[in-house]
Amino acid sequence: LKASERMRPYNFAPGPAAIPEDVLREAAADMLDWHGCGVGVMEMSHRGKEFMQIAAQAQSDLRELLAVPANFRILFMQGGGLGENAIVPMNLSRGGLVDFVQTGGWSKKSIAEARRYADVAVAATNAGRPDSAIPDPSTWAIRPDASYVHICSNETVDGIEFHALPDLKALGSDAPLVVDCSSHILSRAIDWSRVGLAFAGAQKNIGPAGLTLVFVRDDLLGHALPITPSVFDYKVVADNDSMFNTPPTWAIYIAGLTFKWIKAQGGVAAMDALAAEKSALVYAALDASGGFYVNRVAPGSRSRMNLPFWLRDESLDDAFLAGAKERGLLALKGHKSVGGMRASLYNAMPLAGAQALAAYLHDFATRHG
Amino acid sequence: LKASERMRPYNFAPGPAAIPEDVLREAAADMLDWHGCGVGVMEMSHRGKEFMQIAAQAQSDLRELLAVPANFRILFMQGGGLGENAIVPMNLSRGGLVDFVQTGGWSKKSIAEARRYADVAVAATNAGRPDSAIPDPSTWAIRPDASYVHICSNETVDGIEFHALPDLKALGSDAPLVVDCSSHILSRAIDWSRVGLAFAGAQKNIGPAGLTLVFVRDDLLGHALPITPSVFDYKVVADNDSMFNTPPTWAIYIAGLTFKWIKAQGGVAAMDALAAEKSALVYAALDASGGFYVNRVAPGSRSRMNLPFWLRDESLDDAFLAGAKERGLLALKGHKSVGGMRASLYNAMPLAGAQALAAYLHDFATRHG
Repeated sequence: LKASERMRPYNFAPGPAAIPEDVLREAAADMLDWHGCGVGVMEMSHRGKEFMQIAAQAQSDLRELLAVPANFRILFMQGGGLGENAIVPMNLSRGGLVDFVQTGGWSKKSIAEARRYADVAVAATNAGRPDSAIPDPSTWAIRPDASYVHICSNETVDGIEFHALPDLKALGSDAPLVVDCSSHILSRAIDWSRVGLAFAGAQKNIGPAGLTLVFVRDDLLGHALPITPSVFDYKVVADNDSMFNTPPTWAIYIAGLTFKWIKAQGGVAAMDALAAEKSALVYAALDASGGFYVNRVAPGSRSRMNLPFWLRDESLDDAFLAGAKERGLLALKGHKSVGGMRASLYNAMPLAGAQALAAYLHDFATRHG
Repeated sequence: LKASERMRPYNFAPGPAAIPEDVLREAAADMLDWHGCGVGVMEMSHRGKEFMQIAAQAQSDLRELLAVPANFRILFMQGGGLGENAIVPMNLSRGGLVDFVQTGGWSKKSIAEARRYADVAVAATNAGRPDSAIPDPSTWAIRPDASYVHICSNETVDGIEFHALPDLKALGSDAPLVVDCSSHILSRAIDWSRVGLAFAGAQKNIGPAGLTLVFVRDDLLGHALPITPSVFDYKVVADNDSMFNTPPTWAIYIAGLTFKWIKAQGGVAAMDALAAEKSALVYAALDASGGFYVNRVAPGSRSRMNLPFWLRDESLDDAFLAGAKERGLLALKGHKSVGGMRASLYNAMPLAGAQALAAYLHDFATRHG
């Protein structure tokens, strides 16, 4: 298919990223007048009944989609994943010990930031492993008095994903598990019995930048360090139902439309199956190239959302990107820190997009291999 | 005019607030495909050339509109005004002394939050004055070694505005002036020679919630307390041109369209003249009511942006609001902490909106007075 034969090109951007076309069309149609109330969503007071309804519906749909238990609060915050790198230890460390599992660039950043607030140790790392395999939880050196254990369950830059969350209790630890799931939230179910807190910047697998979702177990509220800004104290945010300060109203609205869209597609189970199918297609095309394309991540740790790969012959990079753009395959350039290419296959990417990419991978390798 | 005879009702919301219709129409039209690039603004990588161009243009238009000198950095941040209440002392207090002028609810909140990080004193207050007049700067008790002096130049809830910024140097103080100008930014020129740092949540006089603008003088960068989150360290943000973490891309885009719209209207001078005209009309209607409506703020301290008023007979409040809505005059209910009514006359409110409100004020008082 040529780009001109489709409605829109396929956008493989890592975040901010593709948003379902239905969501964009509805947002455009209601821009000046939401449901006949006379004003658009961006213009509404966050304390008016219209926006309160939008926010409540978004929260309830999200709770339903991820089967979030009643003892978890859902918070709509600002500051993104990098903000949470400070906000989590401010709220949960109690100035004590925090253990991390380092699996790539994002967890590494989280570690550096947490050191401002707590005694940080790396319980396990995949650094130095050529296949970047996530260390088996049985090998993690969790300190007995750790305030929490932090993992990044999908490393956006490195393309590494936890396919199951670790069971810290089974490892003999009572520490709550903190999960940065920014880049694969809503692509698979979450086993909340293993989680104390999860957070996600919305700009990867949900859409709008400027919104952070936080899921926090009730008993972890109320322990913030005195230097925690009020707007980032989870208890203050929870007590005010995410309206202590003006929330990012438009981003919440778009996230809500996306939740509604996911429900219409069949929910998280459907997204899960789709993610499996799309990523299998693209990895198969990479692996079948006889080394023309390279992704060295161990199969059990490969991300289904973010697929980094390198052309063996880097001098073909520009031709690869130009040819992709010609076919309507956009934003495949890799992260500046690692180079190469990266295909992000978030929920909004249809199967046809992954098929088109797989076909292009094959054709380009055949022509240049 | 009845609501049905106009394109859209007049939205007097205090923030999030009215956005110019031209801005909303352009945003809706480009929702799926910005300038032919194939994707919408919400879907763009913040590091791609399209969004970099959008952000650079927004910043340059804002610098031009407010004549921001070269030794000030403009930062696009998250967390709103309440966030800045912590972020400013984290960055500027050096753990020392901070002086405040308390003129209403917003400065009061700022004072409470700053106490977490610094030795705070109130240099002057209008508390207890029936006319809420801003204390004359010559009476302010600024400590000789204050790290900075904080004012809120427009109190959104109380309807109190500094019509000129204080000249701290003339008062014998070298402390930088910090100005929370959230609710009247871009409605008048700023005398930067009197300012060290200014900040504004965008959701009042610019439009989209979830974006905070910070203007900071170069020499104030680089002094953050060690507990400052990286994403809120002004130097980190400045060094990364507001892209240290993913910025709220859509909000920046809408702000940029609003800046372009202001330029097309004649710039800040035109907004200034319009604000004077609109607020004079509405205050005149209130003052001519023979006490039917009450606003007790001293004329020299009255806000041109946020006009709170009370009906002498509160039992008419519901009828007033219902009649207003019938005429397409929306969101006039006052802040929950003070009750009564409030008309916010931000830049996006046309003169005709203020005229319609003034006419309604007169008619309602005549019918019920």
